Amino acid sequence: MQLYSFFNSSTSNRVRIALALKGVPFEYAAVNIRTAEHRAPDYVADVNPSGLVPAVVDGDFSLGQSLAIIDWLDTRYPAPRLIPRGGEQRTRILELSYLIACDIHPVNNLRILKYLDATLKVSPEQKSAWYRHWIKEGMEGVELLLGKYGSGPWCFGDAPTLADCCLVPQISNALRMGCELDAYPRGMAVFRHASEHPAFGAAQPKSQPDFVAS
Amino acid sequence: MQLYSFFNSSTSNRVRIALALKGVPFEYAAVNIRTAEHRAPDYVADVNPSGLVPAVVDGDFSLGQSLAIIDWLDTRYPAPRLIPRGGEQRTRILELSYLIACDIHPVNNLRILKYLDATLKVSPEQKSAWYRHWIKEGMEGVELLLGKYGSGPWCFGDAPTLADCCLVPQISNALRMGCELDAYPRGMAVFRHASEHPAFGAAQPKSQPDFVAS
Repeated sequence: MQLYSFFNSSTSNRVRIALALKGVPFEYAAVNIRTAEHRAPDYVADVNPSGLVPAVVDGDFSLGQSLAIIDWLDTRYPAPRLIPRGGEQRTRILELSYLIACDIHPVNNLRILKYLDATLKVSPEQKSAWYRHWIKEGMEGVELLLGKYGSGPWCFGDAPTLADCCLVPQISNALRMGCELDAYPRGMAVFRHASEHPAFGAAQPKSQPDFVAS
Repeated sequence: MQLYSFFNSSTSNRVRIALALKGVPFEYAAVNIRTAEHRAPDYVADVNPSGLVPAVVDGDFSLGQSLAIIDWLDTRYPAPRLIPRGGEQRTRILELSYLIACDIHPVNNLRILKYLDATLKVSPEQKSAWYRHWIKEGMEGVELLLGKYGSGPWCFGDAPTLADCCLVPQISNALRMGCELDAYPRGMAVFRHASEHPAFGAAQPKSQPDFVAS
């Protein structure tokens, strides 16, 4: 299996965490989204029609969208399970994961920040304020959901789930962008716990073959 | 069950479609997101910690995030099933749904357009170009995925699924914003087919009790 990934992409990071937790071997195929390799005609035609990272390819099968990939991996390699098959735990894990994947990450990813820069010509201060605004709005929701339904040391109990695959890269990204996250102690406790787990270490940006310090 | 919804919200529309397809009765609780009722302290505390629509409340149970709600409904009211329990069909339905829910909708929703207006002070032309840019980028992916894996008259075969619950409100929204969608014949064929289905009719913005012409 090949994983098409960019080291700093937090959606790629989600899938890398899932693969590492499950111990699934894969070949790393670097896609430099800074130079728009994800929009190259061959990539769109052969790997991912969405023109985004991450994607997995396994023989004739190819699949994009990090959450669809993790759902597929969870069926194919069920141990450890990252999305329970039913019950309220499943529902809460999905709710938190979608809050991050639909309402926090997309508005702050590289293509959006590039558009703000290149097309709308916003100032660096305006771009930074944009990023912080959506992190604050989203992380307030994350913190409330964790307070209402979560239990440590992971988002939902004793083992990492899809929610942790989403939360940890998002926090890592926000810290890299200089956000102040002390107002979210529950989220940060999960993040610190994850930082000591080898799968999360293996999946982090600086452990990837295409990592470059920026 | 109460559904907290705003008539024009395409994420609310997704859940309304699912409820209508399944024939689940519910009470409509209007949340005016134009006047920020979704950020009101009582709503955040009692209904949806994410501070967003839609949400469902059923006795002591409350749940946000449209895709988590539809997953929950699909377990509770399995007929008709909107997300197959396994198989490649499930994977393709999730891939397309996430492309819309994570990569198209979030960057063009009301809170983002308001921020562009009120905080970044972009011109109406710039705001419209922003909207059209992300619709084009996203709909190109949708069209390619439908071409590669889909079959009519719905996104994936003879019956509506989660993918249609996501695609139809997104197209409806794009048309309302004046986008030209002729370049996406597969998506538009699904949209036209859905327009004749009573559940999609019942779920559309103008059928809601809080509808106002704008």
